[in-house]
Amino acid sequence: MSADLALALPAHLPADLPLQAWGQTLQLLVELGGTAAFALSGVMEAARKRLDPVGVCVVGCLAAFGGGTVRDLLLDQRPFFWVSHESTLWAVLLLCALSMLFLRDRHFSITERAMLWPDALGLGLFTAAGVHQSIAADMPALVTVLLGVITGTFGGVLRDMVCNEIPAVLKDHRPYALCAFAGAWLCLGLVALGLPGWISVLACVALTAGSRGLAVRR
Amino acid sequence: MSADLALALPAHLPADLPLQAWGQTLQLLVELGGTAAFALSGVMEAARKRLDPVGVCVVGCLAAFGGGTVRDLLLDQRPFFWVSHESTLWAVLLLCALSMLFLRDRHFSITERAMLWPDALGLGLFTAAGVHQSIAADMPALVTVLLGVITGTFGGVLRDMVCNEIPAVLKDHRPYALCAFAGAWLCLGLVALGLPGWISVLACVALTAGSRGLAVRR
Amino acid sequence: MSADLALALPAHLPADLPLQAWGQTLQLLVELGGTAAFALSGVMEAARKRLDPVGVCVVGCLAAFGGGTVRDLLLDQRPFFWVSHESTLWAVLLLCALSMLFLRDRHFSITERAMLWPDALGLGLFTAAGVHQSIAADMPALVTVLLGVITGTFGGVLRDMVCNEIPAVLKDHRPYALCAFAGAWLCLGLVALGLPGWISVLACVALTAGSRGLAVRR
Repeated sequence: MSADLALALPAHLPADLPLQAWGQTLQLLVELGGTAAFALSGVMEAARKRLDPVGVCVVGCLAAFGGGTVRDLLLDQRPFFWVSHESTLWAVLLLCALSMLFLRDRHFSITERAMLWPDALGLGLFTAAGVHQSIAADMPALVTVLLGVITGTFGGVLRDMVCNEIPAVLKDHRPYALCAFAGAWLCLGLVALGLPGWISVLACVALTAGSRGLAVRR
Repeated sequence: MSADLALALPAHLPADLPLQAWGQTLQLLVELGGTAAFALSGVMEAARKRLDPVGVCVVGCLAAFGGGTVRDLLLDQRPFFWVSHESTLWAVLLLCALSMLFLRDRHFSITERAMLWPDALGLGLFTAAGVHQSIAADMPALVTVLLGVITGTFGGVLRDMVCNEIPAVLKDHRPYALCAFAGAWLCLGLVALGLPGWISVLACVALTAGSRGLAVRR
Repeated sequence: MSADLALALPAHLPADLPLQAWGQTLQLLVELGGTAAFALSGVMEAARKRLDPVGVCVVGCLAAFGGGTVRDLLLDQRPFFWVSHESTLWAVLLLCALSMLFLRDRHFSITERAMLWPDALGLGLFTAAGVHQSIAADMPALVTVLLGVITGTFGGVLRDMVCNEIPAVLKDHRPYALCAFAGAWLCLGLVALGLPGWISVLACVALTAGSRGLAVRR
């Protein structure tokens, strides 16, 4: 079963089947934006912890690819996103190197504030991606939703665990995983209603990123 | 090989083959008791660390399902217990919500003391489940025993790692993994002697939970 | 695909295909040396953290087998090294027991200094093993190199995470993963040039261990 899936779903999002209408270019653009935002959050965490350059790159990659990799491990799906799209691995390493140079001169606070929206966008998109992968793998409803949340949040969990912190998502007291949880149920519901995939992705991203953005604004 | 196993062993315990005589109802009851005890330990740890509600649920689920999931990852077996028995996932989330309400009013010490016996029972049962799964997967003897111990203890290890603690099982200086280790060897030995599965499970649970109970009493 | 691989590559290194000429005895000896060095590093870390005997054994095994296990999980390869070579598991547990007795009487500093070279050797050899496994699994270039680095370093990362430390490899500011990174590229390059496997392994070990040894000397 999983072997068939691996053939049918070579990419992060099940692009061939329900998302055709959405446009692969737009999809890839937003996905790369999410990956970049998560990678940046890893780089900043690593810099705050005074890790060396290797540490910055490792934490950046964990934050960017960790959520999707944990989901694929649980679903027993190969290849991983960073294996089938090796170029994103290069891009994240380059981003880590560039932001190390950049962070040496600037204050963190500016970047951290600017990062909230791309991070919220990435959360929404990764959640939608996880939900669609789980639907394709025939998971039950709650498992589907939780795998969506795991895809969106476990990059940050691994980032914080490696940096010897309690994961921010577990103790922040501002909704983060909850936004992804709501978005994942919406996404699953719209797919169950028979709507095309791109509508469910857009709705999930809008609800997740929107509620997260509102929660942070206050 | 692993594909056949996944078909032959849809549940946590290889219920069809050697445990038939034991009664599926009793088995499921005790297993759910163990899951609940481990989930409670996660909730209490999370509450002590002042995690938010999301954190309480995540740590509760990690403690309840972490050990079996790590074992299934290592054995390359799907579906996980919480996928094939989605209702336990709902139950653990509900338990987390209820205990959050409950813990707000009560002291921890009472619950913690009351938890020692179900936790010891859960340890014994999860260890036996791990040993039986590994035997079914044709693992060598020491690997079988260690996978039994991993099934019993890694929920707690993941719980403590996420909460930024050194896992209690590694530094407690009271036997815990050792009890599971002894029980796993006993379980493996009885199966090797050709005794029916339910005897080996009962003996493993009795030795593991009994020795753990004695160790904690003192 | 991965099922064929598991049959074709029962051992840690793809010994049948490109390494025949190198001699299996020498290979196994050096590999066991690396495993022992990493296990020792785990034991010492655990002792420094005042873990109990169970903790010492767990951290020792994580350090010795963690890197290869993470790589095999990511490549979806079974059986693990410690499953197909169960004797190494016994050996590492014995080593942990012996070194617990030994460390009670001696100072750490002597052993720690003596460990640097076997650790560097182990890093080089595990990196080469990871690169060869990834090549056999048809991974792209950068993924191959990173899986080599992961094989060499993630035992130490897991060791430090369980001991509630930021992994040394991420904050040491002395090259460690970088040595493995350089060695992995060299190993990949030599294989791509069509040279026999044992030359690439030797070159990778020489570059990795050599540069690491120099970095530590200063």
